[in-house]
Amino acid sequence: MLIPAVIPFKPRNPKTRLSCILDQAERENFAEMMLADVIGAAEGAGCIPLILSTEAYKFSDYQVLVNTAGLNEALNDLLSKTPGPVLILMADLPLATGDAVKRMVTESAGMSIVPGRGGGTNAIFLSSGESYRVDYYGASFLKHMRIAEERGLLCEVIDSFRLHTDVDEKEDLVELLIHGRGKSRACLEELGFRLLIEKGRVGIVREEKA
Amino acid sequence: MLIPAVIPFKPRNPKTRLSCILDQAERENFAEMMLADVIGAAEGAGCIPLILSTEAYKFSDYQVLVNTAGLNEALNDLLSKTPGPVLILMADLPLATGDAVKRMVTESAGMSIVPGRGGGTNAIFLSSGESYRVDYYGASFLKHMRIAEERGLLCEVIDSFRLHTDVDEKEDLVELLIHGRGKSRACLEELGFRLLIEKGRVGIVREEKA
Repeated sequence: MLIPAVIPFKPRNPKTRLSCILDQAERENFAEMMLADVIGAAEGAGCIPLILSTEAYKFSDYQVLVNTAGLNEALNDLLSKTPGPVLILMADLPLATGDAVKRMVTESAGMSIVPGRGGGTNAIFLSSGESYRVDYYGASFLKHMRIAEERGLLCEVIDSFRLHTDVDEKEDLVELLIHGRGKSRACLEELGFRLLIEKGRVGIVREEKA
Repeated sequence: MLIPAVIPFKPRNPKTRLSCILDQAERENFAEMMLADVIGAAEGAGCIPLILSTEAYKFSDYQVLVNTAGLNEALNDLLSKTPGPVLILMADLPLATGDAVKRMVTESAGMSIVPGRGGGTNAIFLSSGESYRVDYYGASFLKHMRIAEERGLLCEVIDSFRLHTDVDEKEDLVELLIHGRGKSRACLEELGFRLLIEKGRVGIVREEKA
């Protein structure tokens, strides 16, 4: 069964909390490499990527759907037209692997979810898209669990740090340099980022180009 | 097969990075409740808990081994005398479940590992303890992967956010209040801690007792 994997994406001025270490062009390039890694993981699990973009956007020959409404409105519009299974994957999960995504879509329950660090939601699988509506922002994981309960959906929480690790802040880049295997890690390294171990703590440093 | 689960524990003045919100007695009680949760997860996976304490300590009727040497020395001493399988679990993993620990010990490879956030190591399973030596502190996950390679051990990285989430700082308590099910979560709640959602960010607050 081919399952669409909807990946919301903001091509212009993304990841502003990384502005302290990456300029806008670098953030746009880095976000696109994270998207590439997430697409690779979705395809590795046998899903068909569908990029849900906030504006006109082209990435290789992947299907792009443009919706200028907010994240929740755009996703809920899509879900309401999706009687079959659908996966929603955030675009900032560069540690995602096909194996991790497979664990989400092969659950027999009506729904599976992976929380993000800090109460967010990084991934949702629905055996029927139209049975659900999303409510991102804030403690969305708790909201999503509540909506599942209200709708009588069995919801499995998938225990994956690879899908749990979203990249928003400088500290998150440590995880990518340790555990990443894909294009976004290579992108960071090309930009000069390295792990820095000082006083037993692991951080990152950006080396100037010679 | 009964597998010993070695859980290093520091009963006195633990978790000093939580000093900003918990006094010493509260930290000692909270650390013990986290230990109880980790013991529960180890038992849930069919392992036999063995507390490796930095000083004389009693917790229910669990076996306690006292070793005043450093963490690495104490563990390596133990490993050198363990030809059979052994699990090493940190005591500050209050989201651990029996299911998560089971995934570690049922791996067929010679070794499995769960990284902590920030480059640390939260759990190691060895099919033969004496085949390995640990090297904690700093980017210990990378060191442990290197030691496995040097010793020709196949090492599986187990993809679990429940074992990946260690509690060191205030922000980590958010994860416990969202995902915890055990005694350490109840302990935090009794101490008055609640989730606080402000401007879309999830934090914690401590309510004063009336």
